[in-house]
Amino acid sequence: MSDPQTPSSLSSQPNLSPNEANSQWGGRFSQSPDEILQAINVSIDTDKKLWSQDIQGSTAHIAMLRDQNIVSASDADAIINGLKLIRSEIETGQFRFKREHEDIHMNIEARLRELIGPPAGRLHTARSRNDQVATDFKIWVREALAHIMSLIQDLRLGLYERALSEIDTILPGFTHLQPAQPVSLAHHFLAYVSILKRDYGRMEDALKRADSCPLGAGALAGTPFNIDRFATAKALGFAEPMDNSLDAVSSRDFALEALSAAAICANTCSRMAEEWVLWSSPSFGFIGFSDAFSTGSSIMPQKRNPDAAELVRAKSGRVTGSLVCLLMVMKGLPLAYSKDMQDDKAPVFEAFEALELALRALSGMVRDMKINRDKMRSACDLGYLTATDLADWLVRTLDLPFREAHHITGAAVKRAEALGVDLSQLSLEEMRLLDARITEDVYSVLSVEASVSSRTSYGGTAPSAVKEQCARLKREFS
Amino acid sequence: MSDPQTPSSLSSQPNLSPNEANSQWGGRFSQSPDEILQAINVSIDTDKKLWSQDIQGSTAHIAMLRDQNIVSASDADAIINGLKLIRSEIETGQFRFKREHEDIHMNIEARLRELIGPPAGRLHTARSRNDQVATDFKIWVREALAHIMSLIQDLRLGLYERALSEIDTILPGFTHLQPAQPVSLAHHFLAYVSILKRDYGRMEDALKRADSCPLGAGALAGTPFNIDRFATAKALGFAEPMDNSLDAVSSRDFALEALSAAAICANTCSRMAEEWVLWSSPSFGFIGFSDAFSTGSSIMPQKRNPDAAELVRAKSGRVTGSLVCLLMVMKGLPLAYSKDMQDDKAPVFEAFEALELALRALSGMVRDMKINRDKMRSACDLGYLTATDLADWLVRTLDLPFREAHHITGAAVKRAEALGVDLSQLSLEEMRLLDARITEDVYSVLSVEASVSSRTSYGGTAPSAVKEQCARLKREFS
Amino acid sequence: MSDPQTPSSLSSQPNLSPNEANSQWGGRFSQSPDEILQAINVSIDTDKKLWSQDIQGSTAHIAMLRDQNIVSASDADAIINGLKLIRSEIETGQFRFKREHEDIHMNIEARLRELIGPPAGRLHTARSRNDQVATDFKIWVREALAHIMSLIQDLRLGLYERALSEIDTILPGFTHLQPAQPVSLAHHFLAYVSILKRDYGRMEDALKRADSCPLGAGALAGTPFNIDRFATAKALGFAEPMDNSLDAVSSRDFALEALSAAAICANTCSRMAEEWVLWSSPSFGFIGFSDAFSTGSSIMPQKRNPDAAELVRAKSGRVTGSLVCLLMVMKGLPLAYSKDMQDDKAPVFEAFEALELALRALSGMVRDMKINRDKMRSACDLGYLTATDLADWLVRTLDLPFREAHHITGAAVKRAEALGVDLSQLSLEEMRLLDARITEDVYSVLSVEASVSSRTSYGGTAPSAVKEQCARLKREFS
Amino acid sequence: MSDPQTPSSLSSQPNLSPNEANSQWGGRFSQSPDEILQAINVSIDTDKKLWSQDIQGSTAHIAMLRDQNIVSASDADAIINGLKLIRSEIETGQFRFKREHEDIHMNIEARLRELIGPPAGRLHTARSRNDQVATDFKIWVREALAHIMSLIQDLRLGLYERALSEIDTILPGFTHLQPAQPVSLAHHFLAYVSILKRDYGRMEDALKRADSCPLGAGALAGTPFNIDRFATAKALGFAEPMDNSLDAVSSRDFALEALSAAAICANTCSRMAEEWVLWSSPSFGFIGFSDAFSTGSSIMPQKRNPDAAELVRAKSGRVTGSLVCLLMVMKGLPLAYSKDMQDDKAPVFEAFEALELALRALSGMVRDMKINRDKMRSACDLGYLTATDLADWLVRTLDLPFREAHHITGAAVKRAEALGVDLSQLSLEEMRLLDARITEDVYSVLSVEASVSSRTSYGGTAPSAVKEQCARLKREFS
Repeated sequence: MSDPQTPSSLSSQPNLSPNEANSQWGGRFSQSPDEILQAINVSIDTDKKLWSQDIQGSTAHIAMLRDQNIVSASDADAIINGLKLIRSEIETGQFRFKREHEDIHMNIEARLRELIGPPAGRLHTARSRNDQVATDFKIWVREALAHIMSLIQDLRLGLYERALSEIDTILPGFTHLQPAQPVSLAHHFLAYVSILKRDYGRMEDALKRADSCPLGAGALAGTPFNIDRFATAKALGFAEPMDNSLDAVSSRDFALEALSAAAICANTCSRMAEEWVLWSSPSFGFIGFSDAFSTGSSIMPQKRNPDAAELVRAKSGRVTGSLVCLLMVMKGLPLAYSKDMQDDKAPVFEAFEALELALRALSGMVRDMKINRDKMRSACDLGYLTATDLADWLVRTLDLPFREAHHITGAAVKRAEALGVDLSQLSLEEMRLLDARITEDVYSVLSVEASVSSRTSYGGTAPSAVKEQCARLKREFS
Repeated sequence: MSDPQTPSSLSSQPNLSPNEANSQWGGRFSQSPDEILQAINVSIDTDKKLWSQDIQGSTAHIAMLRDQNIVSASDADAIINGLKLIRSEIETGQFRFKREHEDIHMNIEARLRELIGPPAGRLHTARSRNDQVATDFKIWVREALAHIMSLIQDLRLGLYERALSEIDTILPGFTHLQPAQPVSLAHHFLAYVSILKRDYGRMEDALKRADSCPLGAGALAGTPFNIDRFATAKALGFAEPMDNSLDAVSSRDFALEALSAAAICANTCSRMAEEWVLWSSPSFGFIGFSDAFSTGSSIMPQKRNPDAAELVRAKSGRVTGSLVCLLMVMKGLPLAYSKDMQDDKAPVFEAFEALELALRALSGMVRDMKINRDKMRSACDLGYLTATDLADWLVRTLDLPFREAHHITGAAVKRAEALGVDLSQLSLEEMRLLDARITEDVYSVLSVEASVSSRTSYGGTAPSAVKEQCARLKREFS
Repeated sequence: MSDPQTPSSLSSQPNLSPNEANSQWGGRFSQSPDEILQAINVSIDTDKKLWSQDIQGSTAHIAMLRDQNIVSASDADAIINGLKLIRSEIETGQFRFKREHEDIHMNIEARLRELIGPPAGRLHTARSRNDQVATDFKIWVREALAHIMSLIQDLRLGLYERALSEIDTILPGFTHLQPAQPVSLAHHFLAYVSILKRDYGRMEDALKRADSCPLGAGALAGTPFNIDRFATAKALGFAEPMDNSLDAVSSRDFALEALSAAAICANTCSRMAEEWVLWSSPSFGFIGFSDAFSTGSSIMPQKRNPDAAELVRAKSGRVTGSLVCLLMVMKGLPLAYSKDMQDDKAPVFEAFEALELALRALSGMVRDMKINRDKMRSACDLGYLTATDLADWLVRTLDLPFREAHHITGAAVKRAEALGVDLSQLSLEEMRLLDARITEDVYSVLSVEASVSSRTSYGGTAPSAVKEQCARLKREFS
Repeated sequence: MSDPQTPSSLSSQPNLSPNEANSQWGGRFSQSPDEILQAINVSIDTDKKLWSQDIQGSTAHIAMLRDQNIVSASDADAIINGLKLIRSEIETGQFRFKREHEDIHMNIEARLRELIGPPAGRLHTARSRNDQVATDFKIWVREALAHIMSLIQDLRLGLYERALSEIDTILPGFTHLQPAQPVSLAHHFLAYVSILKRDYGRMEDALKRADSCPLGAGALAGTPFNIDRFATAKALGFAEPMDNSLDAVSSRDFALEALSAAAICANTCSRMAEEWVLWSSPSFGFIGFSDAFSTGSSIMPQKRNPDAAELVRAKSGRVTGSLVCLLMVMKGLPLAYSKDMQDDKAPVFEAFEALELALRALSGMVRDMKINRDKMRSACDLGYLTATDLADWLVRTLDLPFREAHHITGAAVKRAEALGVDLSQLSLEEMRLLDARITEDVYSVLSVEASVSSRTSYGGTAPSAVKEQCARLKREFS
């Protein structure tokens, strides 16, 4: 349905002749597959992304077969050289992916046969497409996780570096999007540095748990050939082989876990993005982006839109949709391989592409962002941000139970609202109407700066506490 | 991350020069967008599917501007002819889509400018990309819904036609995948004909609700030009224009509803597919597929796998994932257009492509399917399928309350199990140990055929009732 | 795991004795179910919500059995009276729901047996729990849809009534949360009136499609009793019986469609809620809520939080989660009934409860909301909201192609930004540096009020166009 | 909408008087909240599950305040004793949860005030509901994870113990639900032991990552009181305090990660459940459940339904729905606390309850399951399960490339099918028509037992390899 007006794109796919079908599935089939079976079955448009992993896997496999004397050295070397050639053909854009070869594995094997002839047929000794595809895909997921981890670190670094210059920049901390208490901008940036550390950790754990190799599981039961699974695992960067062949070909929890970690990280990104959309709206005006990170409007010439932040926000939907897709695809599938599992790759590819874009866009934006310190500071004058400080003063100084102090402060705010003044502008007489024991000293806690400075508890927003956070991070980043 | 080994695919995208950026967004920008902003912003790879709808929309718009004397006839005709030429370039594969023009709208407009020069600039009079893209996308969704509806009808027809020959074919009806009561195979096929009618109805309702046109809403507020929105709506096949400009550019519920209907329909498909996977397993052996709908194994030469059915089953995950994606993308977006909404198209395209494949595959399979009537009939000998008939006989003949009849029948089954015989093979003496009033007549209801024939209630599985269903459908299909 | 500290709540459930198990499932079982089987199987905590629907269904069924002479009038009347008594026991809180009776159906039937003795056993003649539960649940969903529809109408009315007084109130229309063009507040409210009309329509269509009754389908195959399904359908408010018994007991698409409509409507609600959270933030300050719709903070005495709006926003997650749940539960279930389908009710109950709360909260808030017209109007002074009007003037007056006019306007905005003035404050000299043909007349379109008034296209924001919208709605609401 | 027939359940909730509202939020509010605000705001029905965690948290907090000389020892001890009393009231069912106190925190604090008077007001010193609820909920999630981990281990143990007796039991291994290669039943059970180990690991990692305590973060900014966050963290079983106060009150990734791990584990469970549903269907007949794990039918007296397995399968939908719910609730929430986050608890509670039931049901079933070894073995006679063995023999013995061997074997299967015999029954003459070099020796690999025994590769299904798996597990389980 690429275009409902024109004949369906599906109809343009080649029919396989019976001979071609035979060449794939052996001598039992006499009729070629129906056009729609081909259309739904073909995966090359998606799984060609696995070309490099497939060549890695095949190379490790054939080298092992050679070392175990299962395939002759000459045949094995012909295969290895053929695979090298195919790699270079793909890297230079000369390789023609063909839909009639269905998937990346057959595309490469068919080309290998063209290049080196019958010995190509030995590559599939002691291997099935089931363990082959599980291996290729797992390698891809591992590489993707590692790549995302480096992007997370880069974003964390960007946030940390901006934080270093903004320890004394004060903006309202919000709850319910209402001004709550003043905080340091550095503290706000560092909150995300902490959150993203856990996002990083989830990727790292997923990587560790995906450290065993499916190759050598065969179709599902293992193989009678004297293969060395430890050797192939090692050659492909895994710590060890998976220890149950049915598990090896049937499981996609490595992909589900990677998607989960991605969905949670995309969620983190969506929150940062939402804030930057808000902050760059003139109603807040806290930040601005340069032309490099703004887009215009086709109709409204004055617009500077934070498109990148909005698109980052949207990506959380994309990644979550991918996770749901694969959870639902895998639901209730009996062991071992079912064809449903061919649909494992598209959601993973799409999710990681989306998350990569999101992280890179945020990294760019945090470095590009212009901070309007005055706007941030003046926003602190709205909303009685130091009310808690008054309540805390009443507790500390007058030894009131907090609940009572909270109640008195509420009344003070109400009075200040009625007079149209800030808390610090309420006269001592007004204050004493609420509690006669209040003294001049109370004004020492009612300024925004005093409020921030006072919150020295561990992890708090006082400059001293924020500097401690920075010091801890400095060790991590250097 | 198309390939973690090679330099990121993103880096191969062209940088826009400041001039190019200016040409899109007017004279306010002095710096070109960052590479990552371009990467996340570019949508041409996805939205080029809308090329035909975009040309339709632009043609209708400029013809209306001409008819309203907002643009001169000569400029308008130049534009219309240019758009015709572009259509033919795209249809013949000569059009070069360029990522530096970001989206399908700018690709076409840029080409129009090349072809006809400055008058191209008049096309965007009284129009914004916001109403343009909403219109293009809505046309696409409407066409896709209509296409899916025709595929549903084709599948229903295939099921109905198979049903006509299988009214007297009996198989076990299952609950909990345990044999429950015998049913006609035609009745089983017709169940899906009924279910799919509601799937069709949901698409039809979605189409009706999407029968008003966003074009003319401008950026969000309407336009001061004297446009005729009824004319463009009519030209584009809509019943009327949308009646609130903010709604017109902000809403994607037409896409959400289409995705919902698609997800429910894909769910229906997954159930049919699951049954066919089960039925074609040798343990059931109820059906088989020809070579045209079977695939083999790269390692196990004996395999005939129902790949198409499995892939249909998987598609329900894909479509649900797309629905979740768009629901989450749209969550909490304030009016009017936000850039997040650019990510509305990929999930819709993917979902409808998946559903199209699923429906076409099922249509092919139902016609290809070989039915093993003997296997179906002999499976009825397992599981005491006529136990309910015994209970019903006790109620009707001996006037027992059903609960008591049910209890006696349970005991009869237990006794038959112990003796290793079927209910109809229990002697009358055995029967009378359970209730002395049981007579020879009871055996008349204990055969599988008698059971099926007796269920003559409206919508029941008796041949007479199934023929009534067929008669009702005949009127619908002819 | 209701509380990990204390012994699991599950362990407090009663064990069934073998006799009790027998009384439910007939004479074949000799051992009582395992404690965990009971724990996972029991549904009474959830499905007791269906008590009224179950009594309706049973009453209609037994009345039909009597009228068809399948059950004697005396037994039937005893049952009907017993059911009436049970209804009153439940309504007055005297009924004891028991977990050992597993579900609502057995709870009511067991109580009926206590009340009227053996004739109670005749109620289940020609009925199965499969068609019974499908009927009960479908009635509940229909009632819930009707209830939600009335809540949507109430919200639409609330929005419409507020709109009537705010036709001349101007606020910035936003795209990308950046000020775009000024709009009428009434126009903004009416956008939601339009959107919610489609939400209403989806519920209405779901209700229509759910207008056939499953009762009489038996376990899956129909029944040999001479029942009248049209009579029970009519008695229960359905237009007709479902026409295929397998479909009747197997399908839950009526619930999926109701959930889809609910998810889309909750999405609409989330957008409105997001706006009200933004608008009530002091940074916008457009609206405020009275104490009746504000909450405070346990620590910050000054806070007035828009909790209700935030919770409405969250409900879209809840409803979407429920939809995903049921789509996934139903995925790939072969016909007919599978026990998985017992888990259809919790997500539907939870989703509709969430949506009810969301709609009622919005209805309350829209009527409670205090509108700060001055803040809205003064926000229009940020962001060069009339830039499009300048561009349109250049097109209309100087006959420039729009793209050129857009470019010139961009330069004007840049110049105004540099000078720190609004567009309307740029001198004619400055203007003429951009295009020498610009005249004094241009200032007539550069005011915010002129901009709004000029957008008279159908569905536009000009007061005249908004009044037309109101007039159309007046017909609908009166 | 608990019952659409009767007045809404919402209307039965108590109205708060202005005074009650004041007592919660301090002296600024003069009007009581609207009924619908109360209805949407009240969370006690859900969060009362946190009662124990709340008492733990408050006890640790007040003890620390005492130790830091922020609250006097006498007040602190009164509070601690009051909390102890409340704990015992709740444990003995004497505590009355009240909706007018909104949530669990206020319910407990209000009762504390009743019990000990004004000193109760000191409990909230240096604490906010924001850090309080984050702490309570995180403790609950940690306890739930630990509990689930023990259930996973119990299920793994059950599978392992059954495996020990079934090393020589052979059943068909399936791919695409078609018989593929024979495998050991022990090997099949052990596959799940391996898969579940990763499920366990995910929970364990989630627990580790959730090892820092939010308490002491205050509303969002920390506190000016000289609190000791390390002390409270330690008292509550955390390794350390969270190091950024904004992160501490804003983040729910610990819940998202727990839900992700639960969703993947529920997916694992759904696959096992699907297999057991299939295997207990008479068409397979591989296993049976005793009465303790079977349920009957209200209408069909012969039924033995695997309800528990079906319900386990359904739970994967429930848990995934919960994950989607919370991902969507958290999407795009700016820092710090938003009220949306109140809806974090219901999905987590529901998901963990569902997963607990699923794991316990599977643990019960695996121990209850009756294994029909004969049926498993005889199913191996369908489907030419040793075809791969023939192909492998051709490779090993005749040195054919695998692809060629695969082709010959396909022809052999086709011939055997035509003759209606098994591969091992094809005569040597028939064999030699396919390749003249085939010898008598080929029959040594064509038996099902020989096939299984030959697959000795690491992780393979040969008894020797399975025994190695068992040996590795023995170390783990003892």
